[in-house]
Amino acid sequence: MFCAFDDGQFAVLMGRYQPTGPGYALVVPYAHIPDLHSLSQSECGQVLHLVARVSAGITSAFDVTGTTVVENNGRPGQSVMHLHFHVVPRWEGDRYPRRTEKPESDRVLAEQSARLAAVLGSSTGRPR
Amino acid sequence: MFCAFDDGQFAVLMGRYQPTGPGYALVVPYAHIPDLHSLSQSECGQVLHLVARVSAGITSAFDVTGTTVVENNGRPGQSVMHLHFHVVPRWEGDRYPRRTEKPESDRVLAEQSARLAAVLGSSTGRPR
Repeated sequence: MFCAFDDGQFAVLMGRYQPTGPGYALVVPYAHIPDLHSLSQSECGQVLHLVARVSAGITSAFDVTGTTVVENNGRPGQSVMHLHFHVVPRWEGDRYPRRTEKPESDRVLAEQSARLAAVLGSSTGRPR
Repeated sequence: MFCAFDDGQFAVLMGRYQPTGPGYALVVPYAHIPDLHSLSQSECGQVLHLVARVSAGITSAFDVTGTTVVENNGRPGQSVMHLHFHVVPRWEGDRYPRRTEKPESDRVLAEQSARLAAVLGSSTGRPR
């Protein structure tokens, strides 16, 4: 996995199947929390504030005009029962929503995570 | 607008164009905040905790198995430049994502907002 941020509590990982191109990231807590429903207000603040930072970071690090944040709770949207936020880079003509079938290469994901890590002021941006 | 919750700081409104059927709601702060990027951690906590409450409320008030939470920042996803979270009810076979062209009637929206207000323990659930 290619990690653009890791503070021991949350990781920001580059998504391998990128629906709209470069910069698609996932924000994931280390703690095993299945979905949004069990979070305290303070936990909500921590995770959404990081999602906001990642969203702003994607907008500045990649050639896009916005983001779409998506989070699924339960079936059929959620396939992995561990809380995670998708941050999807958006640009005019991106044809979102659609599912991408082609995985991105390790080389490209490493470059993207380094670029996102740089704007997040993070020391990671490496595989883990 | 059909409001299922209103504490003077946030409103929960039933969405008129329901992508997957009954229970589609929007969580909107009264303060004019354009998107996620300018929120403090404590503001993130307040809004996401309410989104989580609404998501759990939809799952219990309507005949669905989950929700998808969506929030857009900037173009082309965001059409109204005032922060809002979509909480989309989800069920197997709902054909999400898709855009619904048919608006829901006032009568149906009033019934839905009353039902959601009841599970949120809110005194509203009325037009405003």
